Amino acid sequence: MQRFKLTIEYDGRPFVGWQRQKNGPSAQAVIEDAFQKFAPGETVKVTGSGRTDAGVHALGQVAHLDLERDMTADQLQGALNYHMQPRGSVSIVKAEAVHADFNARFDAVKRHYVYRIANRRAPLTFDQGLKWHVKTQLDHEAMHEAAQVLVGQHDFTTFRHVACQAKSPVKTMDYLRVEREGDEVRLYAGARSFLHHQIRSITGTLKLVGEGNWTKADVQAALDARDRQALGFNAPPDGLYFKHVEFDT
Amino acid sequence: MQRFKLTIEYDGRPFVGWQRQKNGPSAQAVIEDAFQKFAPGETVKVTGSGRTDAGVHALGQVAHLDLERDMTADQLQGALNYHMQPRGSVSIVKAEAVHADFNARFDAVKRHYVYRIANRRAPLTFDQGLKWHVKTQLDHEAMHEAAQVLVGQHDFTTFRHVACQAKSPVKTMDYLRVEREGDEVRLYAGARSFLHHQIRSITGTLKLVGEGNWTKADVQAALDARDRQALGFNAPPDGLYFKHVEFDT
Repeated sequence: MQRFKLTIEYDGRPFVGWQRQKNGPSAQAVIEDAFQKFAPGETVKVTGSGRTDAGVHALGQVAHLDLERDMTADQLQGALNYHMQPRGSVSIVKAEAVHADFNARFDAVKRHYVYRIANRRAPLTFDQGLKWHVKTQLDHEAMHEAAQVLVGQHDFTTFRHVACQAKSPVKTMDYLRVEREGDEVRLYAGARSFLHHQIRSITGTLKLVGEGNWTKADVQAALDARDRQALGFNAPPDGLYFKHVEFDT
Repeated sequence: MQRFKLTIEYDGRPFVGWQRQKNGPSAQAVIEDAFQKFAPGETVKVTGSGRTDAGVHALGQVAHLDLERDMTADQLQGALNYHMQPRGSVSIVKAEAVHADFNARFDAVKRHYVYRIANRRAPLTFDQGLKWHVKTQLDHEAMHEAAQVLVGQHDFTTFRHVACQAKSPVKTMDYLRVEREGDEVRLYAGARSFLHHQIRSITGTLKLVGEGNWTKADVQAALDARDRQALGFNAPPDGLYFKHVEFDT
């Protein structure tokens, strides 16, 4: 048996999320179903570093799987990419043979996300479903400044979906950076792990700051409230990308 | 009567090109048809700075049109953006009232294009139809170097579609730059005007250089041949974007 590490890109628009679910297509199912096409009868379980919600994208999701059959990493990558349907939904950008004790979920020590906002009046063309469309001119510097309130270890109950299954609402945010490039505003976030909807909740709240409706003190008060009702706004999944994962190896 | 200048972005994937044609949808027709929806019975003609082929995109196509009815530029932009179908194909990013003698086609003194190549082995997801997928590792510096052969005034017969309707094959290329950003290779091109398929023909030929199959001398020889048969390769429309237009104002 050989374990492989896969680095995976996917366009989240057609998916109910990363994880296989009964109510619709998922990135995980696309990969597992592709495997069935070149190894009929064999089943494989693909374990990801993190779940992503419906409509959320990945540039560098990482997963592991075990193969009984004799294949090189290059062969596995080629075969999966050849068989995945629909074409253009998921792409294995890298495949590596790894030790049998490598675990994409439990060995991940840092997860990095980026949230992309198209900040312009005109409707989106290329970026529909790929960025959050915010028409009000955003003050990205004020957003960055207010975001620093959330860096470090905090009880993020306010920024957590009510259905979040994590045992504790306490998380450590390693960094939050808000930058502008032309009419795109990007929020970069890194942490060992995140709560359900945490980045979208933070982004939605910082948007209120960028529009001038909230201050840094309001963000602090929302955090201190430890109450989901204190949340400013929850951003849509469109602009969220699981960017890359760091491992302790 | 008031003349307006429109700056237009479109995703070329659903279109037979910029120009209205009988065999399918075009960006020009989407705009003209949107006008019909808020001004029933009136017709308007939208004149673009340049034609683009089927599947070619625009970030900053410029066009002009004349209105009999009383509308501000903001109202026109809003109404067009509201009515254009299908949503996400065309976006009016700017509308300005201009003098009646402004002509988007004849006053354009410089047209700028960018050609985007996704240079990686893995299949494309987000960028299907939006970049040319080239799997061989490209030497972008060799491409840039070879491209300089084509800068300046030349007879571009080799780099011209057989159906090109321009009177002369002689054009002046103001600049050609090839740059890499991660796994994306971009060719930037600027000139007063271009021949039909000129940038795609140049890009396809430079790809041969990037792969190591052609040298700078081969590009020179192809140019000197003044013969379409001497062309290296014609790149697909996927990666081509009409970037912006300069006017002599």
